[in-house]
Amino acid sequence: MFQYNKITPEFIQQLQSICGNENVFTDTEKTTPYASDETERLVYMPEVVVKPSTPEQISEIVKLCSQHNIPITPRGAGTGLSGGALPIYGGVLLSMEKFNKILEIDERNLQATVEPGVINQVFQEAVSKIGLFYPPDPASKGSCMLGGNVAESSGGPKCVKYGTTKDYILNLEVVLPTGEIIKTGANTLKNSTGYNLTQLMVGSEGTLGIVTKIIVRLLPLPKHDLLMLVPFRSLDEACSAVSEVFRAGFIPSAMELMERDALEWVSKYVESSVVKIADDIQAHLLIEVDGNDVDVLMKDMEAIAELVSKYDIDEILFADSAAQKQELWKLRRKINEAVTSNSISKEQDTVVPRAELPKLVKGLKEIGKRYEFRSVCYGHAGGGNLHIRFIKDEMSDEKWHGEHIKKAIAELFTLCYELGGTISGEHGIGLIQQKFMPIVFSEKAMQLQRDIKKTFDPNMILNPGKIFY
Amino acid sequence: MFQYNKITPEFIQQLQSICGNENVFTDTEKTTPYASDETERLVYMPEVVVKPSTPEQISEIVKLCSQHNIPITPRGAGTGLSGGALPIYGGVLLSMEKFNKILEIDERNLQATVEPGVINQVFQEAVSKIGLFYPPDPASKGSCMLGGNVAESSGGPKCVKYGTTKDYILNLEVVLPTGEIIKTGANTLKNSTGYNLTQLMVGSEGTLGIVTKIIVRLLPLPKHDLLMLVPFRSLDEACSAVSEVFRAGFIPSAMELMERDALEWVSKYVESSVVKIADDIQAHLLIEVDGNDVDVLMKDMEAIAELVSKYDIDEILFADSAAQKQELWKLRRKINEAVTSNSISKEQDTVVPRAELPKLVKGLKEIGKRYEFRSVCYGHAGGGNLHIRFIKDEMSDEKWHGEHIKKAIAELFTLCYELGGTISGEHGIGLIQQKFMPIVFSEKAMQLQRDIKKTFDPNMILNPGKIFY
Repeated sequence: MFQYNKITPEFIQQLQSICGNENVFTDTEKTTPYASDETERLVYMPEVVVKPSTPEQISEIVKLCSQHNIPITPRGAGTGLSGGALPIYGGVLLSMEKFNKILEIDERNLQATVEPGVINQVFQEAVSKIGLFYPPDPASKGSCMLGGNVAESSGGPKCVKYGTTKDYILNLEVVLPTGEIIKTGANTLKNSTGYNLTQLMVGSEGTLGIVTKIIVRLLPLPKHDLLMLVPFRSLDEACSAVSEVFRAGFIPSAMELMERDALEWVSKYVESSVVKIADDIQAHLLIEVDGNDVDVLMKDMEAIAELVSKYDIDEILFADSAAQKQELWKLRRKINEAVTSNSISKEQDTVVPRAELPKLVKGLKEIGKRYEFRSVCYGHAGGGNLHIRFIKDEMSDEKWHGEHIKKAIAELFTLCYELGGTISGEHGIGLIQQKFMPIVFSEKAMQLQRDIKKTFDPNMILNPGKIFY
Repeated sequence: MFQYNKITPEFIQQLQSICGNENVFTDTEKTTPYASDETERLVYMPEVVVKPSTPEQISEIVKLCSQHNIPITPRGAGTGLSGGALPIYGGVLLSMEKFNKILEIDERNLQATVEPGVINQVFQEAVSKIGLFYPPDPASKGSCMLGGNVAESSGGPKCVKYGTTKDYILNLEVVLPTGEIIKTGANTLKNSTGYNLTQLMVGSEGTLGIVTKIIVRLLPLPKHDLLMLVPFRSLDEACSAVSEVFRAGFIPSAMELMERDALEWVSKYVESSVVKIADDIQAHLLIEVDGNDVDVLMKDMEAIAELVSKYDIDEILFADSAAQKQELWKLRRKINEAVTSNSISKEQDTVVPRAELPKLVKGLKEIGKRYEFRSVCYGHAGGGNLHIRFIKDEMSDEKWHGEHIKKAIAELFTLCYELGGTISGEHGIGLIQQKFMPIVFSEKAMQLQRDIKKTFDPNMILNPGKIFY
């Protein structure tokens, strides 16, 4: 849809003079790792990979690209699940990996200033060492970068209590597609000053600007957490239990659903035997509470256990050691990998108001019957955010890659919309979900977004072909 | 700066045919109450006041205005403190008072759908009756409307723990200045689907669209709260204590500062004797904690009391009854009225990272000395959000209305910016603070906002002359 120029040797030289020869790569061997992410099995080769290390360098690069009509795709760690970092038009792949410094942890203000190439978990550990807490924790936290988290407004298990990435971003330094470097907001908890450029940038998937500095708010680190695993004989009942816990006044720090297959596959994949799955168990809820008073947490845990006991459940596993907690969390976090290694599948990042989960899952299974695919569900049920994997099994390649499966996905997303939900809770739209955007946005709402894109990026050089088709 | 047409009798007739004769007002007696708000003493007469009751009517009105080049100013309860609802170009004043229904409280999903003309406190009471909680609580909660809260991204004391209005808005129904009715998002806690139109709309002060439906998230209502009032002999120390409480791991549900004059004036104004202010007391901190376990709260309260006791304080007042709590809160909430009735003054809605409060207050007093005005501070110190009243006293009208006081304000806001803060924490920019926007936004960041405005409102008919000059 867009027409771009091809990169020339002269253009490469200009990149080299901006970033230094050692930070510009054109060898296939060096550029191939930047051609894919964690989204299915998609490969788009960049023509050149650059690794700048200052906002000023990035500013020069975008100006150069603008002048020569070359597309730029910014990239963090490449752990995305919607293809947001894929250079689908070739051009310049802008790797942010050199922006890897935690610039300041401001203990007095419970804030930090970080660069976008810092690994999520590295940052979490740095702040937790001094008693502070950065909650957003995607399953990929060991490898994903904070800049990517900002781009996709990533979530994770803790978000049910603490909110997603967007709820922690106070201010951003951004290089615009036109080369200017701006601050979007202020380093304050409250701000009613002009339009919320910060939140417009968060979740914009690298289409409006390149984030070079992130100011986040932090919380005091909760001193304790307790974890339990509840086995349900019915998937529907597991889903129903979710909203009931919240309605009873509890806000768990995690409330994760794992359908039978998911837990079975991941247990094999990581060779764990911590959970014995009885034959009649259809789903598990992994429930965590956190806080500063362990007695209160014990009471909450007991009350939640009693509450879920009115459903048809097997014996609850209360994690009795840090090691067991870690083992249970590892199972949850590795499901994505396990399912991917175990099958060919497509993941949908559905989200609905949490009490509508039973309807979502019922609808899914009906769609699966009609379109002849198995599915497996897991994810952040407490936040209404269910990752649904369609499994290919014996489906023909034609159906799997063609209209057949697209229709099934469209039906699922239409159901999400009808239930008050939408088509991505935390993975973003990127490349693969854009054709489904009209399910949730009117043409006018789509046009507004396209017009905002043009306002920021009049030459349409920054991450083209994402979010909108 | 903008040129609009005057309203004609034919135009009035067309408004009448849209809304009914009984909802269109041109008599000065009926339109005068819509000519001012709570911002200083500004009066701008609308040419006509309309009171529509459906989004479709509003859509027709904006189309009509667009066709005839007539400006429209949407208005909630008119409690704003930055002039956002003032019809500075005359034209149509669109009162949202008929949108006064709570459409649904969805207990299962801890959400509600409300119209923008619902009074904040009416809504809070409706949800608290069934054990739910809507935290944003501006001082004007008894009269301000939720639509106005969305427009200004209003805050209040509870926001230090629970966040401001923006943190509770999931989805909006909006009539655009071009007449289309859109939904901005989804009714979900998590959402990574396209640009965040919801948060672009929140805080846009009625310049991008007219909100006709608001979907908010709710929390379980905390069962208990405890309140204490700490008198400090030094304003600087009161400010210093604020960040220390958070750094020690506590998150109070309110942490309000009242400078001596503020508390003295309001005590007289509401004829309350609950607080005896000793001669050497310079400031008070009003500190509240809330939660479900009263023993934990007692422990927290004691720990916070011990923590602040290292400063030079007088005896702490622990509220010992619901009536006393109410009395203390009434004092805090009525300060604005008391100061206004007691003096001619200008309020600045400063906000900085909370540990910078001592520097802000020190800087303020220095500026006051140089520009020869007294000031009084109060507000949401826990969130770094301090309302600062410049008092006119004996200052000449020329200085008070001219460049002299503007320079003083600019110096104060420059200080806020240098401390990492900004020029409005919860009141918005509206009419009166727009000239100070360049202190915190670069020209490019300003231009982006103007361009966004044009994208939404190409004919510039909706609330013109606000936010940007």
